[in-house]
Amino acid sequence: MPDTMPDKEAKRRMDALLKEIAERVGPANVLVGDDVTARRVDWLTGSPCRAAAIVRPATTAELAAVMRACHAARQPVVTHGGLTGLVHGAEAAPDELVISLERMNAIEALDPVGGTLTAQAGVPLQRVQEAAEEIGLQFPVDLGARGSCTIGGNIATNAGGIRVIRYGMMRQQVLGLEAVLADGRVVGSMNHMLKNNAGFDLKQMFIGSEGTLGIVTRAVLRLQPATPDVQTALVACPDFTALTGLLGHMGRELGGSLAAFEAMWQSHYRLLTETSGRHLPPLAPSAPFYVIVESLGCAPDSHAELFARALEGALDQGLVVDAVLAQSDTQRQGLWAIREDIEGLIQALAPLFTFDVSLPIPAMEDYVAEVEAAIHHTWPEGRVVAFGHLGDGNLHLSVGVGSADPEVRRAVETAVYAPLSPLGGSISAEHGIGLEKRDFLSLSRNAEEIALMRTLKQALDPLDLLNRHKVLPPGAA
Amino acid sequence: MPDTMPDKEAKRRMDALLKEIAERVGPANVLVGDDVTARRVDWLTGSPCRAAAIVRPATTAELAAVMRACHAARQPVVTHGGLTGLVHGAEAAPDELVISLERMNAIEALDPVGGTLTAQAGVPLQRVQEAAEEIGLQFPVDLGARGSCTIGGNIATNAGGIRVIRYGMMRQQVLGLEAVLADGRVVGSMNHMLKNNAGFDLKQMFIGSEGTLGIVTRAVLRLQPATPDVQTALVACPDFTALTGLLGHMGRELGGSLAAFEAMWQSHYRLLTETSGRHLPPLAPSAPFYVIVESLGCAPDSHAELFARALEGALDQGLVVDAVLAQSDTQRQGLWAIREDIEGLIQALAPLFTFDVSLPIPAMEDYVAEVEAAIHHTWPEGRVVAFGHLGDGNLHLSVGVGSADPEVRRAVETAVYAPLSPLGGSISAEHGIGLEKRDFLSLSRNAEEIALMRTLKQALDPLDLLNRHKVLPPGAA
Repeated sequence: MPDTMPDKEAKRRMDALLKEIAERVGPANVLVGDDVTARRVDWLTGSPCRAAAIVRPATTAELAAVMRACHAARQPVVTHGGLTGLVHGAEAAPDELVISLERMNAIEALDPVGGTLTAQAGVPLQRVQEAAEEIGLQFPVDLGARGSCTIGGNIATNAGGIRVIRYGMMRQQVLGLEAVLADGRVVGSMNHMLKNNAGFDLKQMFIGSEGTLGIVTRAVLRLQPATPDVQTALVACPDFTALTGLLGHMGRELGGSLAAFEAMWQSHYRLLTETSGRHLPPLAPSAPFYVIVESLGCAPDSHAELFARALEGALDQGLVVDAVLAQSDTQRQGLWAIREDIEGLIQALAPLFTFDVSLPIPAMEDYVAEVEAAIHHTWPEGRVVAFGHLGDGNLHLSVGVGSADPEVRRAVETAVYAPLSPLGGSISAEHGIGLEKRDFLSLSRNAEEIALMRTLKQALDPLDLLNRHKVLPPGAA
Repeated sequence: MPDTMPDKEAKRRMDALLKEIAERVGPANVLVGDDVTARRVDWLTGSPCRAAAIVRPATTAELAAVMRACHAARQPVVTHGGLTGLVHGAEAAPDELVISLERMNAIEALDPVGGTLTAQAGVPLQRVQEAAEEIGLQFPVDLGARGSCTIGGNIATNAGGIRVIRYGMMRQQVLGLEAVLADGRVVGSMNHMLKNNAGFDLKQMFIGSEGTLGIVTRAVLRLQPATPDVQTALVACPDFTALTGLLGHMGRELGGSLAAFEAMWQSHYRLLTETSGRHLPPLAPSAPFYVIVESLGCAPDSHAELFARALEGALDQGLVVDAVLAQSDTQRQGLWAIREDIEGLIQALAPLFTFDVSLPIPAMEDYVAEVEAAIHHTWPEGRVVAFGHLGDGNLHLSVGVGSADPEVRRAVETAVYAPLSPLGGSISAEHGIGLEKRDFLSLSRNAEEIALMRTLKQALDPLDLLNRHKVLPPGAA
């Protein structure tokens, strides 16, 4: 094992391996020294990459050769995509190699008839979105990191975002997939069809397993019809029952074109408008809940009318006590700017801890109150700010208690995560587990499930070479 | 092994096992003798069940106990749902036990706020649809066998049907899942959220693996907003380019409310109207392609107008040369009756072979022509009739060559399946593999994929107790 071997012998072996790999990918594509540490592995902390080297294969065949060499040498690797993850999934130890898919960045095919796009793993999400638009279609997964995050990373982490209520997560967009296993075998089908029940759907294993079972190299993605007409409103709800009633009402009235239902607790809305002065409040900040409701349609007139009528109905029924409808794209962006102002949250609450959890929608009000009570019990001056993709069961919590010490973090994590377990909630809605949440995995998954995850890991990567230490908590193999 | 043991010893062991099982589930729920053979395992052939016994657990705990006993005795089992499969997936050998989930037929919970329904595996699909309707929502998976097929079977086979283009297959409707493994362990999370990235998404392994990796016992299903307004038209297309152009056009114009795009080659439409006289042809049967286009909306007026305008645009652009719009539910049913008249096909072509394949949409015209040419080369009087869910890449072919002999079947299967391989097509779009297609699996999946499927099977069911012989072709373990 590299980490217990005498240093000199370990170095000799690593040098020999890197030489072999350089023969496969070219010496310019094995980065070492400053070229490694100049890279940040972590969007949040900006920590430098500590890996022994960064390897940049240009093709699936090159990557397969690299993994065969690593497998023979028992060399663990960490895969890098766009490095926009939030759970330390890209961290690498000094005795690990990083595999970066940055050179596998071609869009290989576009089929406007079948509505598919074939991309290599290193293509940024935004390029896929733009390529789809150019042929009059859309790729509906969207998230703030669109310019940097890659399709391979989106798949490996089963990315979510702001369109899930209508289009589903990344998993639902993947028709075909190719991956390289720990031993260098290339597996997968570049399927183009919506229906394919020919044997086990192996690609599902690689989606959302954060690179621990295989390295995603290429994918066939499903595109959707474009929806050029966007209707957006910010509304205020008088209580939680009205908030959930509004979700059902808008779903019914919009017949499936509802695309975003983003709730903000008063704590969030007031902080980013009145308290911080960062945004003019489009509605008075006195209601307990605010929601950005967005619908995507194709026929501007009828869609606008449908949306306006649905909003009127919500006002008539008392589900909504105040509302503002965006009359232009600028106004729309102004509404979303409140919801997406992470910088404002950081400024107001720093040092803060951010969380990404999911739970059954009816339980959300009590859950947030319970977390607030637990925080205030220990830190009377602590702040809890709640917002999120309510329609997806997904809440983002920001907690500031005046300290970012590790033991404080642990206590806050426990306050946020522990109440999820009896509710059937999840410690990770869309960000994944990585290193950050693995020790809490047992709050969301039972012992039999974690044992079965280990069985899968053992079956596909018996030497534990791929993203070692990530996702699964330490324990018996 | 039961099948190589002396009969007497085998019988003694089976009796002891059934006695143990009867203690778990009650003697009335271990059926033997005539109670077994009275059951049909196969909707197509009506073959009697040949299993040693049929075991009917009432709960997950009972099933787990049954599987622990079977595991200890190395006893293989076959799981039965609604018995509406089409690939002999429910066949059981005389030395196998059948596990029937017919008593696990409760709808356990309905959440109108979160839009979820929790069902046991034995609940028929139609009951789920009806329960969703009662709370103003819908469960969108729909297929002809809705009254008999069960949610467990729908999940195990990843059922498709006629709404896939809009709502996806069964896999996309499953939020939470519980399954019993071959050794009796109960695994799974009854997750209710659209977003949950807490570790590997284990349920995906059980969806579509046809009971070979575990026995599905309960599921949390996602419900969708109701879409009470249905717009349906039958149109005639002048050529294949117009047909695929129409698919894109309707997708764009309907902005995602397009729910069915069911194509009929002239061979199909003419046979069931003019030739057989079974249906009055709503449009003259002289065009090469016909399509049932259906859209689901919520606001009757605006949705009807949207649909009519989309159809007019298709006529203006020459994508459609003739069209009829259903003016009532009776007219709608009349249009669908042509598409769904399987009995008419059987009468006209018997003995016939039916196929369920998928392939990239742009390749469909040439593929059907190639199959026709191959059939006519060997059987000049042979008939090939093509129709299917074109929007899903899914074609159903019916082939009649005047014989149903096994060697003729094999030759026809080869004519239908072999051209799929170079196209990246699938030998099974939605029916699964079962026993019927396993020997052709290598046409749709490569050697590395089949090896990986075996790895999974070995990891989850090392004694090969669950649906033995199904899905995977015989070969090295």
